[in-house]
Parts: sequence; structure tokens; C-alpha cells
Amino acid sequence: MKTWHGYTGKILDVDLTSATLSETELDRTVAKNYMGGKGFGARILYDQLAPHCDPLSPENILVFATGPLTGTLAPSSGRFEVCTKSPATGLWLDANCGGFFGPELKFAGYDMVIVRGKAASPVMLVIEDNRFELKPAGDLWGIDTITTHRQIKDTLGKEFRVACIGEAGEKGVVFAGIISEYRALGRGGAGAVMGSKNLKAIAVRGTRSIAIHAPDHFMTTCREAFNELANNPDTGGGRQKYGTNLILSLMDETGIHPVRNFQKGKFAGASQVNEDAIEKYYVRNKACFGCPIYCSKIAEVKEGKYKGSFTEGPEYENVWAFGANCENVDIAAIIQAEYLCDYYGLDGISTGNVIGFLMECVEKGALSETDMGFPMNFGNDESIIQAVHLIGQCKGPGKLWGQGVKKMGERIKETRHFAMHVKGLELPAYDPRGSTGMALAYATSDRGGCHLRSWPIGDELLATEDRMDLSSIEFKAELVKTQQDLFCMVNCSGMCLFATFAVSLKQITPFLHSATGIEAFGSSDEVMKIGERVNNLVRLFNIREGLTKDLDTLPKRFFSEPLKEGPCPDRVVELDQLKAEYYLVRGWDSDGIPTDERMQKLAI
Amino acid sequence: MKTWHGYTGKILDVDLTSATLSETELDRTVAKNYMGGKGFGARILYDQLAPHCDPLSPENILVFATGPLTGTLAPSSGRFEVCTKSPATGLWLDANCGGFFGPELKFAGYDMVIVRGKAASPVMLVIEDNRFELKPAGDLWGIDTITTHRQIKDTLGKEFRVACIGEAGEKGVVFAGIISEYRALGRGGAGAVMGSKNLKAIAVRGTRSIAIHAPDHFMTTCREAFNELANNPDTGGGRQKYGTNLILSLMDETGIHPVRNFQKGKFAGASQVNEDAIEKYYVRNKACFGCPIYCSKIAEVKEGKYKGSFTEGPEYENVWAFGANCENVDIAAIIQAEYLCDYYGLDGISTGNVIGFLMECVEKGALSETDMGFPMNFGNDESIIQAVHLIGQCKGPGKLWGQGVKKMGERIKETRHFAMHVKGLELPAYDPRGSTGMALAYATSDRGGCHLRSWPIGDELLATEDRMDLSSIEFKAELVKTQQDLFCMVNCSGMCLFATFAVSLKQITPFLHSATGIEAFGSSDEVMKIGERVNNLVRLFNIREGLTKDLDTLPKRFFSEPLKEGPCPDRVVELDQLKAEYYLVRGWDSDGIPTDERMQKLAI
Repeated sequence: MKTWHGYTGKILDVDLTSATLSETELDRTVAKNYMGGKGFGARILYDQLAPHCDPLSPENILVFATGPLTGTLAPSSGRFEVCTKSPATGLWLDANCGGFFGPELKFAGYDMVIVRGKAASPVMLVIEDNRFELKPAGDLWGIDTITTHRQIKDTLGKEFRVACIGEAGEKGVVFAGIISEYRALGRGGAGAVMGSKNLKAIAVRGTRSIAIHAPDHFMTTCREAFNELANNPDTGGGRQKYGTNLILSLMDETGIHPVRNFQKGKFAGASQVNEDAIEKYYVRNKACFGCPIYCSKIAEVKEGKYKGSFTEGPEYENVWAFGANCENVDIAAIIQAEYLCDYYGLDGISTGNVIGFLMECVEKGALSETDMGFPMNFGNDESIIQAVHLIGQCKGPGKLWGQGVKKMGERIKETRHFAMHVKGLELPAYDPRGSTGMALAYATSDRGGCHLRSWPIGDELLATEDRMDLSSIEFKAELVKTQQDLFCMVNCSGMCLFATFAVSLKQITPFLHSATGIEAFGSSDEVMKIGERVNNLVRLFNIREGLTKDLDTLPKRFFSEPLKEGPCPDRVVELDQLKAEYYLVRGWDSDGIPTDERMQKLAI
Repeated sequence: MKTWHGYTGKILDVDLTSATLSETELDRTVAKNYMGGKGFGARILYDQLAPHCDPLSPENILVFATGPLTGTLAPSSGRFEVCTKSPATGLWLDANCGGFFGPELKFAGYDMVIVRGKAASPVMLVIEDNRFELKPAGDLWGIDTITTHRQIKDTLGKEFRVACIGEAGEKGVVFAGIISEYRALGRGGAGAVMGSKNLKAIAVRGTRSIAIHAPDHFMTTCREAFNELANNPDTGGGRQKYGTNLILSLMDETGIHPVRNFQKGKFAGASQVNEDAIEKYYVRNKACFGCPIYCSKIAEVKEGKYKGSFTEGPEYENVWAFGANCENVDIAAIIQAEYLCDYYGLDGISTGNVIGFLMECVEKGALSETDMGFPMNFGNDESIIQAVHLIGQCKGPGKLWGQGVKKMGERIKETRHFAMHVKGLELPAYDPRGSTGMALAYATSDRGGCHLRSWPIGDELLATEDRMDLSSIEFKAELVKTQQDLFCMVNCSGMCLFATFAVSLKQITPFLHSATGIEAFGSSDEVMKIGERVNNLVRLFNIREGLTKDLDTLPKRFFSEPLKEGPCPDRVVELDQLKAEYYLVRGWDSDGIPTDERMQKLAI
């Protein structure tokens, strides 16, 4: 049998209903055509998931997938993905996570874990060097993720890496995430899917090495990449100092930093909650597996009412979600909110959106203090914290809130037009009225309102040469399409997107090729084609689940309410031409359906 | 023929007198017993250098040596050494340097370059992938190092890595360094030796890979080390943010931050020249080859009289030398002084010491403004800059100053007792009256007043557990001996000493073993023995050159003038017992001469 390089060649397939665990072989053609991560998940879900199944039913499938670079010495290659059908959108979901869990899974001998069915009672999956078993986890049910990590490590050993859910996932909050050592598979509700299966946690420990096809070439590529990363002003400078908050002031100055649930694009309190103010709370850096960027920070609150609170972060998106979006200037409260999101296992972006939406509901009179049980006004840090508790515990009004702003907009009278989501997934921290690129990125993202399928703002604001115009639509369709395919491929590979700020596509292919020995991975064109192939397969999946071109859209606010102040006043989003151009460059018909010709070209 | 792993197995031997260049083979026994770097240099100089030769005569030998990890993917392994007989001390000299030159030399196919003799007129040595030649360099003679780098890269290609001298080296300043892309083989005058040989520069370019004996094991070791480095509060935190200035405030608070040419131990101006103040001048990070620490900073002066000045740094030692040591609080002037040291090719520590000494000479009336030609009072930033120019150009009184404080103390009346040097090498930024460890470290360093043979202050001040008492002499002999052997071994390996803040000896041996396949390198005991072997061979070299136990001492000031203020008042150094214990643990007799027994044990 031919040896695998880069890959372990093994899959762990777990049926929780029958408590059957089996080891299967990775298919070489699938590896060659779909690479890993999201690609593997897309092939499995498209082929094996019953169409139109309830995301929180036993029928849904959870795929934990690494890529060929995960756990290798290629810099910033500690990532893995979870793929499933999202309870937030009813469509495709993949979420990506750093830390140490993905590499450990490969060291244990698996490229992937597929989880099906539903356990009769709470269980955890324990994997240790090609041995695996389900263990009862009733004593962990109802327990927060931080304690869950500690108890598992106390029992099994601290070398075990853990991914688990908290109360939010157990109780079906549609934006519950899976938490792995203070990092998260955050968006779209994979935690709720895991909870619906009675799977509290996965613990993994491995001691094997990953065979590399051409070690000399691989190491030469590594050394070049390490030097690029170290001497790049972003990955070897600003991102280290400020973490993801690096861009905060720039976004605010550009007027695309959403404030008051996207009612404004520039935050009056920005100087109190900018990257320099947040840096004062950092007590140390933290790095994911094999990463020289160290973008992660540990922040701690040392005084005041949130004293003792800490978080790995706070990340830019959460700083915004619990900060500008709620007009809150208390950084300590932001840290406490992010801490609670970890504690309960919640996605910070969606949680902050729900709270911003509630605040606008109260502002507009659609809800009153009586409905809530406590004040819920913009700028009130204590309201934020109280709301996170209710959502995390699914308690009282928190039950509805935990269903996300889409459902809230449908249930709470006259609020639909300011429910800030795309396809059911709440929006991140960039106002699309100030960036035609982000407008298209949000509208066409496969998992809904997301900034990580493509990030055109990078080329619109941060590029050192050939910077694109924020307000023009020229070349934005091409940019978004290319980025979506590139980012998808990077997510398939196991490398972190942040590494690509310094390491170009031409430097990634030698990694993939020398690690795996797969000839096609040595070609930029071929690996980009894999990204495009995966994105098209996901599109077919979404169409099968009911996606139509009408859902490739944005919240009404962006079409009808111009920003009143800041550098992009009086602009609303005009999406039609952008979308038409995008479908065209994608090779999709005018209904957004992949043409046979494109399918053939991509060999799907 | 057996393949080399880790090593290239080739030496380039250059006789400048006859313009003969030849490629020779590395001896496997030498590799096994002396590892590389300083070890190779020690063996060559001990075996081949004519005893008592004039360091600036054609007889002296310059050895540029890499280690088995240099240029590999082991983190922070971009280092190489130059070994020669020092014109400052007349004794052993090795100087260590990061950047990219050492790795490039290995990529070109050489572990070492040995330079002998003297060219008839200025030349440069050009090496490109196992091809080599001497080229006339008359047009570069007299040119500063920055322009020299640029002109060589313009001519040969910017991929070439360069090490060169400036005017100071050409003119025989005994503390002239060799500069490689803003980093330096700084201490002890290797630049003057290079100048005495009419060798202006070495330019090297290589594209070969370094074969690794056990790539899987090597890469597993790398990934663990990268994680250690990234998540360590020093190498993945403070050192990144502040560079080497990380420790500045701590040293000052401890009262061992020398001020006014070692007249005080605490700087009144510390708040103006501390790590936070310096950080404001940083414009970006810079990393050496394959290093995730990024301790290097680029600082720039953006306003005032030194506007436009820049440096890779300023490093802690230079901040002290041109700052506290001269009672100067102008950071811009410090940056300008460090810039000029690079420009002329000067060692910053020695240059700053010379200026501090001159300032005390004027203070004490041993010199007057008329002798100097300009004011030379403590705190005067313009005096500092003017003096660096005179030293760099060897002009007027700068001719004597360029001979170092030892010679100045002998020539200038009644100043010998405050000439702050050991064995002719000026002292770095730790006052030994506040640290018994540093007292012994300075007194027993093989190249004179140096903090890089051992750094006991680390265990006295920074250790998180089992911290040692600064004023006690207990276990200091053992500590200094162990550190000297460890640091020596690390310098032989090609790894940076800074990596050892996070990567322990037990983690270094797997690198050495898996890279080279040399069995003994897998044992901590064996590699420590190599460090000890090299240090003892160097001791024999020094004894042959005239070293006696009486020279294992410190400037008189430390024995007779207690520090008046700060946390260590009224203390002077008592060296006798420390030294006796040190000789004992070294296995040397009471005259500091290695015993036959120890020599046999070390198989020298």
C-alpha cells in the first residue's frame, strides 16, 4: 500500500446512535480533488447528508476535518474545520479554528472525524493514538466549557486537547459554538448541532509524526515562509502587538465601523475602545500551534466591577460586537462578555448582534423594559452582560434571543428591517455601505453574513499598491470570487488565513506539493481550481437546501438608509450589478446556479 | 563517501598573501568533538596560529564558522562566529552574529571560511554556490559599511549577503567590528584584523539545501520548539515588544545599571530612556534568519537635530553605553551614535565606554577641553556624537581613543583606576558590585569584559523559581561554569542564545542529533562536555598567549569604591573566594591552569 504524506490517510467514523466507531481509509481521489478541511466536509455532506434534514436532528452530520498542512511545520498550520448543516441558516456551515486540537488529531492518526446520529445520553469521544472510545459524560452536561476542559484534562491528562460545548450548545442556541481551549469554531451553530447529538466533548492525544514527501524541499519552503512572516509589517509587527484589533482605528476613520446596530459608521467612543486602549489590558501573547504570528493575546481585567475577568482576546470582531455595535466604551465589559461567550459556548459576533438588535428594539419602541426584565439601552454595559447570561442559559426571553436576529425580526413586530443578518447569520464589523467589496462578500458568502469567505476590504484599504476604490464596483466581482476560492483553498490546507498576509499563493503551493507529493498541488492554477471546486459544490449543496438568488442579499437597512455622517455619507448599497457580474465571473447563470459548462470545467 | 548531515562538510581556505583559495574537507572527528562555530575556531587557532603573533599582522587568522544548526529550520538558527586573536586583548576572540550571512554561507556549501595572510591591496571575497574568487575592492576602501553593502549588492545582486568593515576596521581601531546588514560581529576588534589583511568584505550567495539526518524527528522537534518560543513570556512577549531593552527598567531598579562610567548604579534619567520611551522610536520589527522572536527593531528619529537617523536597534547595551554610562537622556542621540557605529564599523559597547571614560577624565581633571578640542562633559549628547566621528575616522585625539580604555588608562595620567575593562575589553551594562555572578562572569570571560560567556544575572534576577541571591557567592562558581559551557555549546551549534530562554538543553540535543546523525549530540552530558572542551582549549590558547590568573580580575573601582546609592549600597566586589571556587569547579589548579586530569577527562 502506498504511504500517505501530509495526510494520515485515516478517518474516524462515529455513529452515536449505535455507538459504532470505525476507522476508514481516506480516498486518494478525494484528497487530490478536495485537499482537506472544508473540501472534505463539502464532499461528505453533499454525498451523505439527507436533503432538507433538520440541522438539530440525528440525521445531521458533523465533520471535523484537518488539511494536509495541519500539524506540519509549515508556519501557522494549526487549523481545522467543522462542517455541518447550520441551524442558523438551514444551509452550509463550515467554521475554522486554530489552537492545538487539529494538529493533535493528526498526531493521533486521523485526518478527519465524522460524527453521525445521536447518543442516548451525554457522551464524550476520546481518541488516543489510533485508539478511540465513547465515554459517558453525564457529569459534564450543563457544565461550562472552561470547567469542562479542566475536568477532562484532570481525568485524562493535561496533554489531551479538547473541543467541547457549553450550556448554549446543549440547549440549541443557533449560534452556539464549539470551544477548544479558548478558541472557537464559532459561527453558525455547530455547537448546537453537537449538543443535539448529546456529544459534550472530543478529547484527543497523539504522539505520531506526520510523514513529509520531500523533507528538504519542505524545510527550505518553511524557512523562507518563516522569514517572510517575521519581517512583514503585519504578521511580524502590528498583528503581534495589537492582535486582530490592529485595524480598529483604520476601520473607524474610514467610516465603516458599524455603530448602534449599523445605524452609524463611525464611533464617537472610538478613542476609548481603540487598539491602544485595549493593548493596556493584555498580559501576554499566545500562539496557536507552530505559529510565529502570536496574534492571540490574553487580556485581564485588574480592577473595577469586572475585576478578575479574562479572555484569549478580545478579538476585533467581539470588541466591535460588544463595543461600538452596542455603543459601549467599557473595555472591561467587553472582556467579560467575551469570557462569557467562551464560558457558555457562544459565538461572539452573533451574540453582540442580538444585543445590539435588542437595544434598537427598545430604542424604536418595539420592546420595552418590561419585556426584557431589565434596561436595554445603547451604551449600557450591564445590560450586555445580563443579556449574555440569559442567552447562554436559554433562560426567559433569552430563549428567543438564542434563535438569532432573523427569527427575532420575524417575531418582534416591525423590526425585520433592522435585523442585521444575511441568510440567518448575523453580520460582522464592516459596514457594506462604505465598501462595495464587503457588500458583495456578505451577500454571496455561503454561510451567510461572514467576512472570512472573502475580505475585499483588505484590497480596498490595506493594499500597499493597486489599492481599489471603496465605492467603485469595478473588479469587485473578480476580487470577491478570487478571494473566496483562495480563502477556501487555504482553509482546506490547514494553514491560517493570517499567514497569507505575508505568504503568497506561489509560496503556499511548494508547501502543499512537498508535504503531500501530489503533483497538482504544486500548481497555483490547480490549487485555486480546488478552491473553486469546493465553493461550487457548496453552492450546489445550498441550492439543494433551498437557496435562491433572492437570498444572496443584504439587510434592508443597507439599501434604504444611507449613513448620515463619516467619510461615506449618503451612500446606500446597490447590489444588482455587482451580483450579476459576480454570477458571470463565477460561471453561474442569472439565477446563481452553476452552469453545466463550469461544472464540467471543475470536474464536479 | 559518507554524506554529511547538518554540515556541508566543506571549508573554504583563503590565503590572501598568495591569493590562493582552496576547498578542503571538514574532519569528522573535529565535528564530533568541537561541533562548530567557536569550537572549530578554537581548534584551528590553537593548532595553526603562531604563538605571540601580532593580532594585526598577516600571521593572524580569521575563522568564520557556522554550526550544524546554522541555516536549518531549527528556530533562531541564523548565527555564525568569527574567531581570531584580538587586538584589544592580545588573547582569544570570538564574536557571534545573527542576520542572514551564516545561513547563506552554508547554502553556498561551506561550514567555514578561514582567512590567512594579507592581500597586497584591498580585496573582497565573493562566494557563490561552491565557486569563489577574490575581487579588487580598492574602490570600496574608505567607504562606510552602509554604502559598501549597497554597492556590493548593486554589483553582484541583492540576494548576496555581505559582511564588511568600515573606516574603523581599515584604520586599526582595536574595537572595530565586522558589520553584516546592520548586525555586527562587534566585540574585540575582528574588524581591525580584517582591515589589517586588506579584506574589505565577504559577499556570499547560496541556493543549496542542508541535508538533515532524520527529517521527521527534526521537524517534530522544531514544532515543539516553535510552540515553546511563541508561548514564552520572554521570547513570545516582552522581547518582541521591547527587543533587548526588555530588562532595562529592572536593571535600573535593581541598582546595577552603570551610570557615569560606573560611578553609580541607578540612573536619575531612567524614565526618559527606558524601554517604553525607546519603543516610541520603533517603526518596525526585524527578524534574523528563521527566528520567531523578532527581537530586532528598526528605530527612526523623526524630528529634532538627529532627524533621519535610524538603526537596527538601539540594543540594550548601546542604549546603556551612550545613555546611562554617559548620563545622556537623548534617545535620538543614542540612535545616531548606534547608527554611526554601524557606519564606521565600531563596537557600540567599547565606543560608549571610551566616551564615558573621556567624560570622567575631564570631570577628574585628567583631560581638559583643550586636549579634546570640544567639551566632553557627562550628559552632553553632542560630545558623544563628535567623539564617535573622531574614533571612527581615527582622527586627531581619536587615534588614541580607538586603542580602547586600557591603553588610554596607561597613557593618560592617573586614570588607570577608572578604565573600565577586563583584559583590555570594555565592560557591558551590569555593575558587578550588585551581582556576584556578573563579577565572576566578567573576571573569567575568555575574551575579557563580556556578558555573553555567562549571564548569571538571569538566574539572579529573572528566574521564576530558585532565584539566586545577588549578593551571595553561593553556587555562583557552579552557575558561571555551567553557563559558560552551555553558552559556548549553543554558540558552537548555530542557534541563538536568546532561544535558550524558552528552549532547554533537553530540547536542543534532539535538534543536534536529528540534524547531524552524530550519536553523542543526542546526550545532554556529551554536548555540555563539548562546551567545556572548547572553553578549556581556549583557556590553553590564552595561557599560551600570556594569560595569568592575575588577569582574571576586574577594574580597581569595583574593589575599592562602593556604590553610594541604590539597592546595593556600600558593597564592593570580593573576588578571591569566588575565583578560587571557580577554578576548583573548572578542574583548574590554583593558578587557573587546567589540570592534566581535567584535560584527560575532556580528551583534549
